[in-house]
Amino acid sequence: MILALAGGVGGARLANGLARLCPPDDLVVAVNTGDDFRHLGLRISPDLDTVMYTLAGRGNTRTGWGLEGETWRFMDALARIGGEIWFRLGDQDLATHIERTRRLKEGQTLSTVTAALCRAFGVAHQIVPMSDAPVQTIVHTDAGRLAFQDYFVRRRCEPAVRALEYAGAESAAPSPGLRAAMSDPRLRAILICPSNPYLSIDPILALPGVRAMIAARKVPVVAVSPIIGDAAVKGPAAKIMRELGHAPSAATIARLYSGLADGLVIDERDRHLRGEIKAAGLRVCIADALMRSPRDQARLARTTLEFASKLEPARHQRVTA
Amino acid sequence: MILALAGGVGGARLANGLARLCPPDDLVVAVNTGDDFRHLGLRISPDLDTVMYTLAGRGNTRTGWGLEGETWRFMDALARIGGEIWFRLGDQDLATHIERTRRLKEGQTLSTVTAALCRAFGVAHQIVPMSDAPVQTIVHTDAGRLAFQDYFVRRRCEPAVRALEYAGAESAAPSPGLRAAMSDPRLRAILICPSNPYLSIDPILALPGVRAMIAARKVPVVAVSPIIGDAAVKGPAAKIMRELGHAPSAATIARLYSGLADGLVIDERDRHLRGEIKAAGLRVCIADALMRSPRDQARLARTTLEFASKLEPARHQRVTA
Repeated sequence: MILALAGGVGGARLANGLARLCPPDDLVVAVNTGDDFRHLGLRISPDLDTVMYTLAGRGNTRTGWGLEGETWRFMDALARIGGEIWFRLGDQDLATHIERTRRLKEGQTLSTVTAALCRAFGVAHQIVPMSDAPVQTIVHTDAGRLAFQDYFVRRRCEPAVRALEYAGAESAAPSPGLRAAMSDPRLRAILICPSNPYLSIDPILALPGVRAMIAARKVPVVAVSPIIGDAAVKGPAAKIMRELGHAPSAATIARLYSGLADGLVIDERDRHLRGEIKAAGLRVCIADALMRSPRDQARLARTTLEFASKLEPARHQRVTA
Repeated sequence: MILALAGGVGGARLANGLARLCPPDDLVVAVNTGDDFRHLGLRISPDLDTVMYTLAGRGNTRTGWGLEGETWRFMDALARIGGEIWFRLGDQDLATHIERTRRLKEGQTLSTVTAALCRAFGVAHQIVPMSDAPVQTIVHTDAGRLAFQDYFVRRRCEPAVRALEYAGAESAAPSPGLRAAMSDPRLRAILICPSNPYLSIDPILALPGVRAMIAARKVPVVAVSPIIGDAAVKGPAAKIMRELGHAPSAATIARLYSGLADGLVIDERDRHLRGEIKAAGLRVCIADALMRSPRDQARLARTTLEFASKLEPARHQRVTA
C-alpha cells in the first residue's frame, strides 16, 4: 500500500499515475486542505477537487483546475449583477461546491463528503483530506498577511513571500484516512508528490504527529521534485523559493525534505545536482520528471515506486542505526 | 402613485403592464415572499425573481419562472453527483440566488438586496418584498402539512388542499417599501394582481396592519381576476378553490376580496357573473383579461387603472358612509 501526500496540479498528476498502477485498495492520496476557503457561501477545496477531477479523468488539463469542457454561464451572470468574480467557478464545478457545502452543513465530515463525491465521480482510489479540521494557509508578504486565495488567485502570487503560516494546523488532527494509511501494516512507501513544498506539502507536515508518524514507519519516503532546472512545472514554487532566499532547484527541495525523505526523484537535466542532494542526505533517482500526459504520469509513478522499493533496505538501516 | 400586490406569473405580467404605463417613481410592486425558502444553502425568492426578471424583460415567458435562454449545466452536474434536483436552478438564475444569499448573510435586509438586484437587472420601478421577516406558506393537505415548495414543485400541487397557513405572518412587519407606499399621500390606487389569492395575495394581507391600512386609505382597491371561466390562467388556483369547497370562478374571487376591494376586473367570457360579483359588493370591469404578450399586459394595466380612477368617488362614499 502506498500513501501519497499531494497538493494541486503536480500532486494530482503523480496521483493519477499511481492510480493507473495500484489497485484501489493499495493507494491513499492525502491532500492538502490549507487552500480551502469559503467563497460565495460555498466551501471550496481546490486541491481535493483537482485530485478528484484528475483521477476521474475529468480534469481540465490546460488550466490545471476545474473540469474539462466547463462553461461559465453562472460566472457571466454573476458578473452582470456585480457579484464577486475573482475566483472563477464553472457551471459544473459549482455542483461539487454546492453538494460539499450542503453535506458539511448537515454535519458530515470533510472526509465523508470527499468519499461521497469521489464515489459520485467514479474515483475508486482513496482520496482523503489531510484533516477534517480547518487549516488556513496564510501568506505573509510584503503586501501584508494574506489569506491563501487572496494571495494565489486574486493577487496572482505577485506579492513577495516573507513567511508561511498554517493557521489551525497545530490543533488539526490528521484525518482518519491519513492516520489509517500511516499506521497500515501494508504500507510500503510514502511518496511526496511534486507539489509546492510551502503551499501544499508543509501544511500536511504541520499537522500534529504527521512528521513523527512518518519518521517512525520503517518504509521509504520518496519525494518527486516539483522543480526542474530553476523553474516550477506549474505555480509559484520557484518564485517563493527565491523570495525566501533559496535558489530554486531540486537541491533546495532536497534540503527542505532533509531528515524526512530518503530519496528524491529529479529530472534528467538536474543530474548535476546529485552531489548536493546526496549531501542533504537523500538518495537520487534520475527520471523524465515532466508529466505531460497520463502516460507520462504512469511512467513517473512507476519509476518512483521502483526507486522507493530499492530504498527499503537503506531506510531500515537508517531507522535502526 | 400605484401600489400593486403581486405573486408570481400573473402578478409579474400585470406589473409589467403597469411598468409600461407608470413612471418609475409612480409604481410600487409589493411581492409575496411566503414561497421563499432555503434550498442547497441558497435563499430563494421565487416570486420576487419572477417579477424582477419579467420587468427586466428577461423572464422566461414559456415556463413563467426563471430566465430566458437559460442553460442547465449546473443542474445536470448536480444530478450526476446525486444532489437534490427537484427544484430546478438555471446556471444564470443561480447567480441571483448566490448574490442574494451572500448579501443577506452580510446582514442586508431582503428589501435592500432586492433593490440592489433590481438595479443590477436594470429594473427602474420599485419591486419590494412584502416583508423583510420570514413568512412561510404552509399547505395543509390530505397528504399532511407541507412546506410550500414541497407542495408546489416537488408534489406538483397534487395533494388536495384543506387549509393554508402563513407561518410567521402574524409577527412579520410589512417591508419599509410596502409601508411607505401604503402611507404615501400620492397613492391613487391599490391593485391586486391576478395572482393566486391563497398562495400569493393572502400572505400579504396576513401581515399585521395591511388590511387595516388598505381599508383606511381613501383610494380605490381593484383586483384583477386570476380565474377566467372556471380555470386559472396558470397554476393551481382553480384546483385549490374546488378543494376548499368553492366553484372556481371570478365570482369566487369577488367573494374572497369582498370588503377589501372596490372593484374586480373580469374577462369578457365571465360577463354573466356581473350580478354575483356586485352582490359581493364589488363593481365590475369587463376586459380581455388574458395576457399573452407585453402589449396585452399594458392594455389590461391601462383598463385596470382607468377602472380604478372611475371608482374613486365610490370609494370615498363607501369609506365615509
